[in-house]
Amino acid sequence: MPELRKDPIIRRWVIIARERAKRPSDFRHKGTQEDDAFCPFCEGNEDKTPPEILAYRRAGTQPNKPGWRVRVIANKFPALRIEGDLTKRGIGMYDEMNGIGAHEVFIETPVHHRSSSALEASELEEVIWAYRDRMVDLKKDRRLIYGLIFKNVGREAGASLTHTHSQLIATPFVPIRISEEIRGSKDYYSYRGRCIFCDMVREELSFKERIVAETAEFLAFGPFASRFPFETWVVPKKHFSHFENSPKQVIEDFALILKKTITRLEIALEQAPYNYLIHSSPFDCDFLKEYHWHLEIIPRLTKMAGFEWGTGCYINPISPEDASKYLREIEC
Amino acid sequence: MPELRKDPIIRRWVIIARERAKRPSDFRHKGTQEDDAFCPFCEGNEDKTPPEILAYRRAGTQPNKPGWRVRVIANKFPALRIEGDLTKRGIGMYDEMNGIGAHEVFIETPVHHRSSSALEASELEEVIWAYRDRMVDLKKDRRLIYGLIFKNVGREAGASLTHTHSQLIATPFVPIRISEEIRGSKDYYSYRGRCIFCDMVREELSFKERIVAETAEFLAFGPFASRFPFETWVVPKKHFSHFENSPKQVIEDFALILKKTITRLEIALEQAPYNYLIHSSPFDCDFLKEYHWHLEIIPRLTKMAGFEWGTGCYINPISPEDASKYLREIEC
Repeated sequence: MPELRKDPIIRRWVIIARERAKRPSDFRHKGTQEDDAFCPFCEGNEDKTPPEILAYRRAGTQPNKPGWRVRVIANKFPALRIEGDLTKRGIGMYDEMNGIGAHEVFIETPVHHRSSSALEASELEEVIWAYRDRMVDLKKDRRLIYGLIFKNVGREAGASLTHTHSQLIATPFVPIRISEEIRGSKDYYSYRGRCIFCDMVREELSFKERIVAETAEFLAFGPFASRFPFETWVVPKKHFSHFENSPKQVIEDFALILKKTITRLEIALEQAPYNYLIHSSPFDCDFLKEYHWHLEIIPRLTKMAGFEWGTGCYINPISPEDASKYLREIEC
Repeated sequence: MPELRKDPIIRRWVIIARERAKRPSDFRHKGTQEDDAFCPFCEGNEDKTPPEILAYRRAGTQPNKPGWRVRVIANKFPALRIEGDLTKRGIGMYDEMNGIGAHEVFIETPVHHRSSSALEASELEEVIWAYRDRMVDLKKDRRLIYGLIFKNVGREAGASLTHTHSQLIATPFVPIRISEEIRGSKDYYSYRGRCIFCDMVREELSFKERIVAETAEFLAFGPFASRFPFETWVVPKKHFSHFENSPKQVIEDFALILKKTITRLEIALEQAPYNYLIHSSPFDCDFLKEYHWHLEIIPRLTKMAGFEWGTGCYINPISPEDASKYLREIEC
């Protein structure tokens, strides 16, 4: 059973997932991509993965058999485990609980495509519906308070398989990055009486120079204080605090902006690794007027060094205005 | 002139240091280590670096000539620049100021050693005195509020030269990671009436299983909620809030624990990249009863992926008890 331990200073939870590895050399070259001679995510290899939790499949086909379009399975090497009690406890001056949570994998297509941008918007839309269905289901588990949907593309970004997939980890605590964002958003709201993300959408629509793509319901832009070259955020134009509570036309339109933005980035980045992640509101409320769900895309072109680890600040060698102009001008 | 931009949600300052690079491919393979055919940090090549700011050298030798033991120069490619005014301003809903600051390089030895552990404790002590002298000097600049001393070892950790060196970046703001640590420490103090770091030292001395090394004045240990395999903190046993205000015997003893800890880590990590950094108190006060300077060593054996970026949480595949036992048992 993994352990959840809390840093007593910053109050950051860390997952201690003991593996058999004990020597430092055991950690080198880990997370490397397996070669593609055999891919357990391809259609026909369903018996090589944990059983499916959810699949959208052709009428008449059987679970864990071919015939699916999107397939959700438990992660074979989960960071957190779904069985058990939290059993919160103190260890000396420190706090700990059992590593309870969910860790699921979304296989985005039965075909061995390496990128989301290879999918049609209609296929991507089904991936997004699967994200939403899983979030709605996991919310029912009262031990869990947060769900993070994320994607790792490329070995340097943490991917271990190339077949396009994404993941969901649900945790029994609100992660520190989310509580910081919510605190900042609440401070802004108490000062201005408006959602800071709604204000950012208005600001970016009027300034124009950081826009990467736009659809009826979404704006994709390089944030003013971009941490990384070509960092891009995708934000709903209207105020929705919870991703999974967004109306149907927003989910559908999200597929369009995601297709457009990811395609531009994948063309621009020329196979560079990247991550994306969805920041949404915690499970323990139905609506927050101050917080606004969004997707962040983090290209992995630069390295974290001592300054970044020590300060939490970043040195970005390109302005978001220059980066966004470059992305915006890619035809797709 | 670089720009400092503030993320309006998290309130994290970011340095936008526009370089000529504009295309994503310009950022690939950056930060790679130059080959060692020519090293500008070696004795005899003083004219290939910016002029020295400080050097400890043999009596009778000239500045920017051979004869030094430790040499401090301005970074040739500084993240922040020392000349100019801050000129704080609003841009629409965002905040910005000029990228004012200091960015200095400590060349730790005239000989082309690749690691701090190759230095004698007496040589390391001079490096630490140079850290201290530069902090004391930079504090006099009223535009600057914080100084971070850090070291990048290995290409993956952000080093561009192999000759052992460290850096100091002084900023006109308190970095977000520091303000979070100070806030957490103040909360703890207001609850318990004690410094949290002093309590951690006591806890670790009594628990013993996370200790990596110990000297008269310092304890090196794997923190309870370690983010990374073999993460190690070096903490003064007595309460000092500002690194640069530590008494002489503490500075001298710091060289001993650093030599011991770095040697154990470098043996264990077998050339793996790592960073270290010193967290100290801001320049705008003389003493904080709640905050305690320390050094953090971050081995770079695992990768940041979407979960880490999205949550600020980490998945650590080895417990600090196992990692510290491994390090502690290395003879040196």
